[in-house]
Amino acid sequence: MIDKHQQAEFLLEAMPYIKKYQNKILVIKYGGSAMIGDELKESVMRDLTLLSFVGIKVVLVHGGGPEISQTLERMGIPSKFIGGLRYTDEETAEVVRMVLAGKVNKSLVHMLEAFGAKAVGLCGMDGNMLTCVKESEELGFVGKIVHVDTQLILDSLEKGYIPVISTVGGDDEGNIYNINADTAASAIAGALEAESLILMTDIRGLLRDKTRDDDESLIRKVSVSDIPSLVNEGIISGGMIPKVKCCREAIRKGVNRVFITDGRVKHSILLELLSDEGLGTMFVKGD
Amino acid sequence: MIDKHQQAEFLLEAMPYIKKYQNKILVIKYGGSAMIGDELKESVMRDLTLLSFVGIKVVLVHGGGPEISQTLERMGIPSKFIGGLRYTDEETAEVVRMVLAGKVNKSLVHMLEAFGAKAVGLCGMDGNMLTCVKESEELGFVGKIVHVDTQLILDSLEKGYIPVISTVGGDDEGNIYNINADTAASAIAGALEAESLILMTDIRGLLRDKTRDDDESLIRKVSVSDIPSLVNEGIISGGMIPKVKCCREAIRKGVNRVFITDGRVKHSILLELLSDEGLGTMFVKGD
Amino acid sequence: MIDKHQQAEFLLEAMPYIKKYQNKILVIKYGGSAMIGDELKESVMRDLTLLSFVGIKVVLVHGGGPEISQTLERMGIPSKFIGGLRYTDEETAEVVRMVLAGKVNKSLVHMLEAFGAKAVGLCGMDGNMLTCVKESEELGFVGKIVHVDTQLILDSLEKGYIPVISTVGGDDEGNIYNINADTAASAIAGALEAESLILMTDIRGLLRDKTRDDDESLIRKVSVSDIPSLVNEGIISGGMIPKVKCCREAIRKGVNRVFITDGRVKHSILLELLSDEGLGTMFVKGD
Amino acid sequence: MIDKHQQAEFLLEAMPYIKKYQNKILVIKYGGSAMIGDELKESVMRDLTLLSFVGIKVVLVHGGGPEISQTLERMGIPSKFIGGLRYTDEETAEVVRMVLAGKVNKSLVHMLEAFGAKAVGLCGMDGNMLTCVKESEELGFVGKIVHVDTQLILDSLEKGYIPVISTVGGDDEGNIYNINADTAASAIAGALEAESLILMTDIRGLLRDKTRDDDESLIRKVSVSDIPSLVNEGIISGGMIPKVKCCREAIRKGVNRVFITDGRVKHSILLELLSDEGLGTMFVKGD
Amino acid sequence: MIDKHQQAEFLLEAMPYIKKYQNKILVIKYGGSAMIGDELKESVMRDLTLLSFVGIKVVLVHGGGPEISQTLERMGIPSKFIGGLRYTDEETAEVVRMVLAGKVNKSLVHMLEAFGAKAVGLCGMDGNMLTCVKESEELGFVGKIVHVDTQLILDSLEKGYIPVISTVGGDDEGNIYNINADTAASAIAGALEAESLILMTDIRGLLRDKTRDDDESLIRKVSVSDIPSLVNEGIISGGMIPKVKCCREAIRKGVNRVFITDGRVKHSILLELLSDEGLGTMFVKGD
Amino acid sequence: MIDKHQQAEFLLEAMPYIKKYQNKILVIKYGGSAMIGDELKESVMRDLTLLSFVGIKVVLVHGGGPEISQTLERMGIPSKFIGGLRYTDEETAEVVRMVLAGKVNKSLVHMLEAFGAKAVGLCGMDGNMLTCVKESEELGFVGKIVHVDTQLILDSLEKGYIPVISTVGGDDEGNIYNINADTAASAIAGALEAESLILMTDIRGLLRDKTRDDDESLIRKVSVSDIPSLVNEGIISGGMIPKVKCCREAIRKGVNRVFITDGRVKHSILLELLSDEGLGTMFVKGD
Repeated sequence: MIDKHQQAEFLLEAMPYIKKYQNKILVIKYGGSAMIGDELKESVMRDLTLLSFVGIKVVLVHGGGPEISQTLERMGIPSKFIGGLRYTDEETAEVVRMVLAGKVNKSLVHMLEAFGAKAVGLCGMDGNMLTCVKESEELGFVGKIVHVDTQLILDSLEKGYIPVISTVGGDDEGNIYNINADTAASAIAGALEAESLILMTDIRGLLRDKTRDDDESLIRKVSVSDIPSLVNEGIISGGMIPKVKCCREAIRKGVNRVFITDGRVKHSILLELLSDEGLGTMFVKGD
Repeated sequence: MIDKHQQAEFLLEAMPYIKKYQNKILVIKYGGSAMIGDELKESVMRDLTLLSFVGIKVVLVHGGGPEISQTLERMGIPSKFIGGLRYTDEETAEVVRMVLAGKVNKSLVHMLEAFGAKAVGLCGMDGNMLTCVKESEELGFVGKIVHVDTQLILDSLEKGYIPVISTVGGDDEGNIYNINADTAASAIAGALEAESLILMTDIRGLLRDKTRDDDESLIRKVSVSDIPSLVNEGIISGGMIPKVKCCREAIRKGVNRVFITDGRVKHSILLELLSDEGLGTMFVKGD
Repeated sequence: MIDKHQQAEFLLEAMPYIKKYQNKILVIKYGGSAMIGDELKESVMRDLTLLSFVGIKVVLVHGGGPEISQTLERMGIPSKFIGGLRYTDEETAEVVRMVLAGKVNKSLVHMLEAFGAKAVGLCGMDGNMLTCVKESEELGFVGKIVHVDTQLILDSLEKGYIPVISTVGGDDEGNIYNINADTAASAIAGALEAESLILMTDIRGLLRDKTRDDDESLIRKVSVSDIPSLVNEGIISGGMIPKVKCCREAIRKGVNRVFITDGRVKHSILLELLSDEGLGTMFVKGD
Repeated sequence: MIDKHQQAEFLLEAMPYIKKYQNKILVIKYGGSAMIGDELKESVMRDLTLLSFVGIKVVLVHGGGPEISQTLERMGIPSKFIGGLRYTDEETAEVVRMVLAGKVNKSLVHMLEAFGAKAVGLCGMDGNMLTCVKESEELGFVGKIVHVDTQLILDSLEKGYIPVISTVGGDDEGNIYNINADTAASAIAGALEAESLILMTDIRGLLRDKTRDDDESLIRKVSVSDIPSLVNEGIISGGMIPKVKCCREAIRKGVNRVFITDGRVKHSILLELLSDEGLGTMFVKGD
Repeated sequence: MIDKHQQAEFLLEAMPYIKKYQNKILVIKYGGSAMIGDELKESVMRDLTLLSFVGIKVVLVHGGGPEISQTLERMGIPSKFIGGLRYTDEETAEVVRMVLAGKVNKSLVHMLEAFGAKAVGLCGMDGNMLTCVKESEELGFVGKIVHVDTQLILDSLEKGYIPVISTVGGDDEGNIYNINADTAASAIAGALEAESLILMTDIRGLLRDKTRDDDESLIRKVSVSDIPSLVNEGIISGGMIPKVKCCREAIRKGVNRVFITDGRVKHSILLELLSDEGLGTMFVKGD
Repeated sequence: MIDKHQQAEFLLEAMPYIKKYQNKILVIKYGGSAMIGDELKESVMRDLTLLSFVGIKVVLVHGGGPEISQTLERMGIPSKFIGGLRYTDEETAEVVRMVLAGKVNKSLVHMLEAFGAKAVGLCGMDGNMLTCVKESEELGFVGKIVHVDTQLILDSLEKGYIPVISTVGGDDEGNIYNINADTAASAIAGALEAESLILMTDIRGLLRDKTRDDDESLIRKVSVSDIPSLVNEGIISGGMIPKVKCCREAIRKGVNRVFITDGRVKHSILLELLSDEGLGTMFVKGD
């Protein structure tokens, strides 16, 4: 059995890793499987509470996936997809905002506070945070971020809150935009010049051999300069292409480390931060 | 025609009234008719922007009335009323939160910012602001506020934001509560020891003769000590009883002036604050 | 009749104009006709109180004109003019200081405070604000400013006071200098890198046709690069030449907008700031 | 000859005395002979500069005596005395303000700054500092202070300035009042709860035998409780009665030590503060 | 084998315990066996670094025991004991200061900083922290603390340092006093109104049956009101009497919890703080 | 006899000299004869108290010379010299730290506080202040400073303490280094970019003719560019070479004035600062 003495040792081992992030900004994109089961959800919120509590400035950016579809269906609003992407008309955009900013967001805030954290639920409209234009005319109100105002995020962090951010944005005409969560997290991390960005996904990380989901196949560290050749080799392909683009963009704007982490694994965020090797794939600027 | 010279004079006339509220907290309960038409809505948001802009610390508390019913209906969730009050089960409470905190709230924030104000949309879960228990077992999750944590409101005001607050609360078990907006505004104003509280309603104010909605019938000023006799005389009756109770409670906790104001009138808030006589009925402590 | 509703509308219309100047420094040179009648004087002080009150950092620089002559005459000190300018010997300089800093200044301060502003009366000696040398030997103690120390002005503004400044300066030998008020205001505005400088005058502004004092003849906006040609055309001539020089100097040092405004018009300062077109002539850097 | 070594010793001896006043407020009423000769005047200003410079919060309150009479005479305004006191009509009050706030005040400020101090010249109108009513109807605008607003004095001290204060006050109707300098200094020291108040006079201090102006006759320390018996014995009599009243009032409001000091002696302020025995008479609360 | 997942769980388990002490002051008296072996010493310093690092305000008070005797012997200074206590003449007091403040203290500071903490080594002379008189004439310079000046400790904590304090004090005559470390730690904790005080000892805690050093015999919690009866029963006796007196005194001055902890056990401080039951005996005010 | 009037004059004469250093950092290397007799020692501490007290930021760096030898001898540790320098093994380094940081340092702190200063005794380990490597392998732990961390010194000055610094340093392996006091003071002054550095020595200053210790032979001012030719002429030679090197290094890093001052003279520090000519030799950058 693990006794208290070992627990003390583990605490001490974690010290240098946590220290590295103390008083620094860590942006986490929360979504996918990690967001579905109640146990995993609570585990993530508890991990974030711990990080906030030891002095790391945590910013949580979340999407909402299945809950949006359920509510749309329930309200009898038909879903239309163009090239695999959801067409977002005005009514759909309002439902997206309602589900993300009203349901998912406040439920995460509520959970964080139950664990003892201070949290505040925001969306891209609050403090004019995310200003958008249409990504393309045919997709409707799918937003492309043209400006991030970080003031409200910084004010919240300064006062000790974890800002929990729904990925909906606005424009000067009062339109609502649905924004891809990876993209929003990358833009926010970049604008904040965060220390790190963690993208929680449903995969182990970047795999050298996609048929083998094991440690040997996992690429642990990627320099942004290596990305083109990894694309050429087909190692970065399909759905990984936009994700890797988000990593590269964040680093270009000043983020030091971006992680693609397996959100299906319990405590994946702590595991990513607690060891030199980490859990998934880390993107950095140089070698 | 009104020329610039007269405009300058009007500005100067407003000076002492605005000065009275500068650097003080003004809580506004926004609801009813004032919340329905787009023109009236924009007018209210513009008035609040002006007040915030001249140095008054505005806190906006809103309900959502008709929008909740529409969404429930659209989602096929049946409404059940007990003694005229909506029975709120868990599913209904989630829809209330979604509509208030996700739709109504963020839309008001968006509008305020379009007029140049800084605003942040909050609900009773954010910063553990409103802790509730059940008002009564038979009504389900209709919340009675047992604690108001004003820290997040004060932090927001200090940083220059108008906090826009949805009247949903929580408890330690993760339940969601639907709270009456007058009650919530009164509890928040009381906890903040606000200078004033304005309850926007669909009536002219307290009327001596309810059949006559005119200036002569309007009671302009009420001391809380006069309330019992006004109830006895039948002047305060029906739906006015809980409203007046909210006024009395706020004053008991330290609010100096509480107004019942006609939200159907354009610029009702400015009119209430711009003159000695005001627009509706003012409740004060003493004579 | 103008009712309260219209008043509210006017207030809202003024909002964007005032906002432009909020937390910015506005230097006003006060003199001429605007300083003579009691009604106009009080009107100016009330306008400045309003501006200070809505968050504009007002700095008032004043001369004293006729009051100096009256006191000199009363004290039996002969006046001597050289090329239209007053020769200022040591005794005259002392009387100038006494009248400006003791009478005119404190009377303006007294009036501002009666309207509710916080004000402090200063002269160029206080905080070593204005250091002078002789403009020319033959004029005696007519001062040319060689250094502006803005510390006391900034300290006063920070603490919420309107600094009211008499245009007398000093040097290290204890001499007193009489300074032209336009020049002093321009030097102070320049050293403060004020947002704007308003020179209150007894004319409508810069006129294309000096025989026609009407809107059509008024030049509303002048870029400093246009000044030479306006001088060549004779549009800027006579007493306007030193005034325009003050405008140009202020802009060269970083002031964004300089106005030549008709001080004979009631609320001229508010009118200049309340509309896009303004009242008199605005000087700016570029086009 | 005194060499540098002795100078160092003297500096060290002064240390504990200065330390006693560091960061404390010292109000000095400056008037009488100390204000006449240029050498004595400069010596006082240099002493005050030193005190300010070693961290004592110096507040200088001054009258103007002979200069007022000279200017009145020069302006042909007749002087009228009632029971030895000057009758002050409106015109006289304006001349008093002009001479005190415009001439004497700014000249002291100028001198202090020449010695390296930071100084700001104020009068009772600035920051609404001294609010007056008429002392008696028959004396005209001779002021009795009914309120001291210390904010501007405290703001000035906080920013490192020596506030130099002319003893003219105002009221809400715009009247100007001439105030006795001892009374004003006492009221200001009392409102500031200053550590000490020094009244510079033209006498050695309180003398046991008024015919003998020597050390033996000098009473060095007086408790306020001893005052009545000293009056009965005739030791406090004539012009000393109002002066001693000022001492007693200041102590009643919280000033710890009040000194009646001989302003005819060079460095009298330093001498009063540099030794346990002091120079003149010290008034304290208890024994 | 313990893997990373378990480590994360342990971290999370520690969260509520650490949180209890965050931003609170924890005084630790370090001495006895915990101070002898290098491994145990480093382990204690590492534990303190962790506590400081997670936001607890750690104050370390240490004695020096054997090192003093060794140095005295080496310098040929004879030791003299009176009733089991060391007689401390002037020369001995100087050696005590030299060994504690020069050797032991700076070596602890050096070690803390090697683990990443910020630390500053102080003694009772620094900032006039500990003022003493003689405990008794016959013991010489054994100090009884008559005043604790906490300013330097608070300044050090505010700037993020762990103050490491040697238990030597002084008086106004320049004498040096040797102070018992338990007493000094208790006085310092009391003056700071610390949250907790931990006395590291060479025993398991307060034992019901002194012959049985096991969990069953250990008294885990003692209210100060129970002390007299525990003394009567002989459970508190001998060397425990002065130790328990230190506990009682600290609680009387406002410390919430005082622990007698077994310094021979590795991570004893963390173990005391990581669980509800703790390691040794906890003294509290009430039940 | 010198009376109080002269004392006041002396105080005033000192004003401009002290003013030059107010709020600036003055590093003093204290050693040699000035450290031996009790009277001279107290005199130096009193001078420093005065300087601190009038607002100069004093940093005291001290060695320990004879006391180290005495303690080593008393402990029976043999001294070994290589080329005139003390070989420092591990045991010797520990004794050096014990004597400097435990005895000399705390005794100086104690004395400063007796005179009313606030002081804190530090060594190169505190706050990781002085990081060293071996100067040369053959001398053992004689330290060469490779990094100065000024944070703790600046924190102490900000809080109003005189930091008193023992010249022992450390490294990451826990080794202790004995550092030459002139070198340490120069490195500290350089890292602080102090206004001035005073090296207290046992000589009058730099002498043109070393056989004549009089005013005529004394070189009062040296530009660093003159040093090479002074070395060539043999005026700087022997023990002066490393001292002058310290002066040059400090100036190179940004110190404005470095003084070599005769510590045998009472009040030498005040004398150096109280006059334009000073006492010893001043080194400056340019001519």
